[in-house]
Amino acid sequence: MNNVSRRGLIASTGAVAAAAALDTFVGSSAIHASTPPAGKQAPGFYRARLGDFEITQISDGAATFAMPDGWVKNIPKDQALATAAAAHMPEGKLNVPFNPIVINTGSKLVLIDTGYGPNIGPTVGLLPVHLAAAGIDPKSIDTVVLSHLHPDHINGVKTKDGVVAFPNAEHKVPAQDWTFWMSEDNAAKADSQMMKNYFANVRKVLGDMADKVTKYEWGKEVAPGITALDTPGHTPGHTSFVVASGNAKMLVQSDVTNIPEFFLRNPDWHVAYDIDPVKAAQTRHKFYDMAAAEKTLIAGFHFAFPSQGYVEKDGNGYRLVPIRWNPVL
Amino acid sequence: MNNVSRRGLIASTGAVAAAAALDTFVGSSAIHASTPPAGKQAPGFYRARLGDFEITQISDGAATFAMPDGWVKNIPKDQALATAAAAHMPEGKLNVPFNPIVINTGSKLVLIDTGYGPNIGPTVGLLPVHLAAAGIDPKSIDTVVLSHLHPDHINGVKTKDGVVAFPNAEHKVPAQDWTFWMSEDNAAKADSQMMKNYFANVRKVLGDMADKVTKYEWGKEVAPGITALDTPGHTPGHTSFVVASGNAKMLVQSDVTNIPEFFLRNPDWHVAYDIDPVKAAQTRHKFYDMAAAEKTLIAGFHFAFPSQGYVEKDGNGYRLVPIRWNPVL
Repeated sequence: MNNVSRRGLIASTGAVAAAAALDTFVGSSAIHASTPPAGKQAPGFYRARLGDFEITQISDGAATFAMPDGWVKNIPKDQALATAAAAHMPEGKLNVPFNPIVINTGSKLVLIDTGYGPNIGPTVGLLPVHLAAAGIDPKSIDTVVLSHLHPDHINGVKTKDGVVAFPNAEHKVPAQDWTFWMSEDNAAKADSQMMKNYFANVRKVLGDMADKVTKYEWGKEVAPGITALDTPGHTPGHTSFVVASGNAKMLVQSDVTNIPEFFLRNPDWHVAYDIDPVKAAQTRHKFYDMAAAEKTLIAGFHFAFPSQGYVEKDGNGYRLVPIRWNPVL
Repeated sequence: MNNVSRRGLIASTGAVAAAAALDTFVGSSAIHASTPPAGKQAPGFYRARLGDFEITQISDGAATFAMPDGWVKNIPKDQALATAAAAHMPEGKLNVPFNPIVINTGSKLVLIDTGYGPNIGPTVGLLPVHLAAAGIDPKSIDTVVLSHLHPDHINGVKTKDGVVAFPNAEHKVPAQDWTFWMSEDNAAKADSQMMKNYFANVRKVLGDMADKVTKYEWGKEVAPGITALDTPGHTPGHTSFVVASGNAKMLVQSDVTNIPEFFLRNPDWHVAYDIDPVKAAQTRHKFYDMAAAEKTLIAGFHFAFPSQGYVEKDGNGYRLVPIRWNPVL
């Protein structure tokens, strides 16, 4: 007896009791017809055209964690907690997403930033899974560009076995960040556990690649149509990118802000990760004033997936207008 | 010669000219190593848990069209155009997405609204494609619930061959909308081409299903845990839904607003599609005051995909805080 005729029978008796009685003979699974839950999220990638380029935003995942003391250094924690609550984050917690970007320029397949890499946790380090879902073979990446040398941007350079994850790619690092992080003097002067960890991590991930990486300079192309833009403060060599094809243009901001609900809305707030917080705030104003005036599309590594939007001036800060999901490329 | 050694060769000569010369022997596709553009958007579905329920938001697509005169009936067109521009819609145009929702209650697989159906256009009518991507077989849908009888909600009830798209489902329609739209008196009194088209469309899609549909009443469950909520004005029988499992709750608003950038932000603006615009505005205030006070998650048929968010009071209107994409269910 198939579902349709069973349903017809139940409808014709008009009685839930009859269905229940029937259960005793045929088992409940046929009556309670529903499919089991899928239990699986949609793949975290999003495509867009930019002139002749194809952009694929890739989710490396998102971390939800209790807000540390001093996460925003220059406001009271109560105010930071209220800001998180206003963004409907779980009570007392932060939610920080990580979104690398792939740009197919036609001649080069370029990955900007590599995510948190392996061994972090079930909701982070998903770049390889979502690249596969997007049909992008790691072997086909021609150029890996790192915006700066923090762990959530560089750790995906290596697989869990410690080998290079993008074996055919040229790896490009910002010259100033390389100099800063590879300096033994600077490492010795690290004045917090966080900074000590960062210095150690750069050595662990990139230490054996010193003769393989290409150092890039601000104001120059890292790939055809992709120009490095100086946005220092977060780290000494922190870099954003202007991506241009024909008349189309976008800004890949990297970490000009961490989550926009805090630091785009309030550009003078200092996130704990900004190494030179005053310079980082200056960079935010300069960068977003330009983007707002020119109405330029921005991709933000820490914007909520699909992590692209436009910026408007709003009082002393800015407001993010997320893109509207385009269902057909 | 594989990509790696070719790349090594090119790097060692350091000369683009050498690569170009090599092209003449081996063809350019191997040198210009990039993968061709994928040319395909990610599948438009998004999953979430709500208590014991599994929610799958499905994109039926989005329409971009020139703003008709009188689209917002009670404001000047210039103001409407400026509102669209502020939302970064294409100049002079509107972008309206369509997002049905599937709820797996454990005992029933329920689809609320069916999208624009076949024969509309390449960016709309994608429900079947995205259901398939989400692993949901139309034959497994137990209950189709229509929130109201406008074309973008009901036309997906039928396939392009005119047969029922969800062959094993009970189809539930709001009693008051059924009475309104099926009335020959009302059809004869239709005073605009739009209303004439709507009456004709209801007959075309549902006319042969009069003895198959179940009429539902406000205040009662349409499926276990899914209760019909009276939100009239947009149409006489327009219905929203309270979805509750354990302590978790969400509101499926249907068309309490069309696009939120206009009518959630400005609840007293009258969209051309509201049959009783004054009542529709009253409904908006009542509905969003409740949702803002209770901080209830809302799914909006015309919210940008993934079409869920929270509402905050903001001046005389409201502000939508979109959910943050959860990369792992």
